[in-house]
Amino acid sequence: MQARVGILGAGQLGRMLALAGYPLGIECVLLDRDERSPGAQVARFKAAALDDAEAAASLAAEVDVVTVEIENVPADVLRAAARHAPVHPPPDAVAAAQDRLAEKELFRSLGIPTTPFVRVDTSHDLDRAHRELGLPLVLKARRMGYDGRGQRIVRNAEELHGAWSALGEVPAIAEAWVDFDRELSLVAVRGANGQRAFYPLSENVHRDGILRISVAPFEDERLQRNAEERVDALMQRLDYRGVLALEFFHANGELLANEMAPRVHNTGHWTIEGAVTSQFENHLRAVLGWPLGDASPRGHAAMVNLLGNPPPLDALLSLPGVHVHLYGKSPRPGRKIGHCTIVDPDRRRLLERLAALTNVIEVSLPNPTPRNP
Amino acid sequence: MQARVGILGAGQLGRMLALAGYPLGIECVLLDRDERSPGAQVARFKAAALDDAEAAASLAAEVDVVTVEIENVPADVLRAAARHAPVHPPPDAVAAAQDRLAEKELFRSLGIPTTPFVRVDTSHDLDRAHRELGLPLVLKARRMGYDGRGQRIVRNAEELHGAWSALGEVPAIAEAWVDFDRELSLVAVRGANGQRAFYPLSENVHRDGILRISVAPFEDERLQRNAEERVDALMQRLDYRGVLALEFFHANGELLANEMAPRVHNTGHWTIEGAVTSQFENHLRAVLGWPLGDASPRGHAAMVNLLGNPPPLDALLSLPGVHVHLYGKSPRPGRKIGHCTIVDPDRRRLLERLAALTNVIEVSLPNPTPRNP
Repeated sequence: MQARVGILGAGQLGRMLALAGYPLGIECVLLDRDERSPGAQVARFKAAALDDAEAAASLAAEVDVVTVEIENVPADVLRAAARHAPVHPPPDAVAAAQDRLAEKELFRSLGIPTTPFVRVDTSHDLDRAHRELGLPLVLKARRMGYDGRGQRIVRNAEELHGAWSALGEVPAIAEAWVDFDRELSLVAVRGANGQRAFYPLSENVHRDGILRISVAPFEDERLQRNAEERVDALMQRLDYRGVLALEFFHANGELLANEMAPRVHNTGHWTIEGAVTSQFENHLRAVLGWPLGDASPRGHAAMVNLLGNPPPLDALLSLPGVHVHLYGKSPRPGRKIGHCTIVDPDRRRLLERLAALTNVIEVSLPNPTPRNP
Repeated sequence: MQARVGILGAGQLGRMLALAGYPLGIECVLLDRDERSPGAQVARFKAAALDDAEAAASLAAEVDVVTVEIENVPADVLRAAARHAPVHPPPDAVAAAQDRLAEKELFRSLGIPTTPFVRVDTSHDLDRAHRELGLPLVLKARRMGYDGRGQRIVRNAEELHGAWSALGEVPAIAEAWVDFDRELSLVAVRGANGQRAFYPLSENVHRDGILRISVAPFEDERLQRNAEERVDALMQRLDYRGVLALEFFHANGELLANEMAPRVHNTGHWTIEGAVTSQFENHLRAVLGWPLGDASPRGHAAMVNLLGNPPPLDALLSLPGVHVHLYGKSPRPGRKIGHCTIVDPDRRRLLERLAALTNVIEVSLPNPTPRNP
C-alpha cells in the first residue's frame, strides 16, 4: 500500500472511505467501539471508544494522517492524535460543527445568511426566542444532534417550555421556522495548497429528520456560485482539509445555511456513480495532500436511502442500472442500512426511474408540501 | 453480509471481485499461496496452494458458491470443491480453457472460426504444421500459458525445431500467423436461468504478449452481433455461469477466435467506470444466481495497464478524470501492478486524453503495424 489513513469512526462513511482507498493503494485503519461496525467488516480495525484519546494517539502513531467520519469525536481526542500525525480536517473545524450555536455564529461572522436564531440557555432566553422569532420555531440542542435527534418543533406557545424540558433543558438554539421551497446541499473538498473542488448542488428530501432522497445536479448557476462562495469562505476560515458539506434551505430564491458537516456526507453518496471522482476518494486525496479529482457530474443521479427493513435485494437488482450499497448493519426501524443510486444522462428519465425505484423500496416519494427537517 | 463467495486465486482479479462484493453485502473469501497477494490485502484469506484439493473443499464448506479468478486451477480441485458448494463456472468449462488445443477444437465444433492450427505432439507433427500452415507460425504450449508465456514465433524453417525445444517439447499447438487489423475481445456474463448480458467489444493492444491498452466500445453492430452469438454458443455448450471473455483477431473484416478466459478479464477492467455494471459485480451476481446488471457502456472508456515500475502516482492523479487502480504488488519488470481508466462521452476526446495519459505512464502508444501477440 502507498499510504495509510487512520479514521475515527467505522460507520458506513468509514466503510465507504476504506473501499474508495483500496484502488489507490490507500489502507484505512478504522477505530470505533463495535467490531461489527460497517467499516470493521472491510478494513483494518481497532476497537476503542471515540472519546479515548490514548487510542486515537496510538492510531495516529501508525498512520500517515488521521481523519474523522463522524463529527462527534471530542476535539481533545483529535488534538491528542495531532501530536503523532497530521489531523484533517483540523480539530477546531470539527469542534465548530459540534455546536449548533458556534456553527451559526461562524456562518454569521462570514456573512453567510442563516435562518434567524436565538441562543437558549435559560427559560428567560426561551421567551425571548418566542418574541423575536415568532411561531412555529425549532428548538435544537446545541450538541450531539444528528438525523433529527435533539430537535423539537414548537407550533404554539403552550408547547414552548415542554419542548425544552423534553430536550433536558440542555444549552440549545431556537431557530425561526422557514417555509423553504427545497433543501439543497453542497459537498466540497479542499486539499493541500488551497486546491479546491466543488460538487454540484444536490436537492435533498428529508422525512422525520432523516435524509430519504438526494437528486443531483440541481442546476442553477447563480445558486451554485453562491453556495461555492460560502463553502469556500468557511473552508478558508477553518484552514480546512478534506470534504465539507453545507446544507441549505432554498427559500424566496435565496440560500440560508442550515448546518455543516466536517466529513463526507449522505447527500454526496450519489457521487460514487454520479461524479467523475467520488466524495470518498476526494476526501482521502485531500487529507493525504494528493491532487484532487474532478468533481464534475456524470449525467444526473438520484440516491435513495434504505431505512430500517432488510431491502428487497432481488427486486432492486432486477431494476436496470440500480447500484446497491449495503452497510452490513442489522436492520432496525429508521436505521440507515444502505442506499441505492441510479444515474441517467436525462433528468426527466432519471426521475421516472426514481419513482420506480422508490416504489420497490417502499419509501415515500417527496412530499409536495415544504416542511422543516 | 448477505452472501459469501469463495474465490480460488487472490491476484488482482480476486482483489477487484472482493471490492465489488462489499457494496452488495457479499463477502469474498480468497484462497492463494501468498498472504501478501493483492486480494489478501482487502478480503478474508486462506493460505493454500491452488492445487490443494483439500483446502478448496474446506473453503467450499464455508461459502455459498465457489469461483475462480485464474484458469489454471486443476479441474480435480474444482470437483473436490463442488462436493461442498456449487462451483461456477463449471469445472469442465475451466478445464476446456486450460488446453489450447481442446479450446480450439471446442471453437471448431461450434462453428466458431479460428486461425488454422495443427496439433504438435511429435517432431513429425512439427513438420506437418510447417507444411500445412506455412511460415511464420506461432508455436504455443498447450497448457499453462498466459501473458505471452509458453509461446514462440517461428519466422523461418531453421527456427522450427529450436522453438519447440525452447518450449521443452511439451504438447503444443501450432497456429498460422495472422496479419490481423486489430485485436478485439468480448466480455459476457451468464447467470441463473440462462440470463445473459454482453459488454460491447473492446479493442486491445498487446505488446510482448502483454495487454497494454483496451478501448471500448468498438462500435460495429455486425461484429458485435457475431461476437455475441459465438460467446453465447460457448456459454450454452459449457453450461456456463459467470463472466467469460473471448479474444478475437479482426482480419479481413471477420472475427477469428483466439482464446477464451473463464473468468473476469483484463480487457474488461474498463467496465468499472465505463459500464453501468462492472464485470466484477456481474460475475458475483451471476455465480450467486442473482439478477444480472446492465452491461451497457457509459460513454467511451480507455484502460491502460501499469507495468513494472511504480507508477508516477502524483502525475497520474493530476490528470483530470484518471481513475487509478493499484493492486498492492511489489514492482517487477513487466509485472501488471495496476491499471488506469479514463472515460469520456466523446471518443475522439477520449483518444486525445489517452495519448496524454500514456505519455505520463510512458507506455508506448499503439503500434500502427499489425502484429501477432
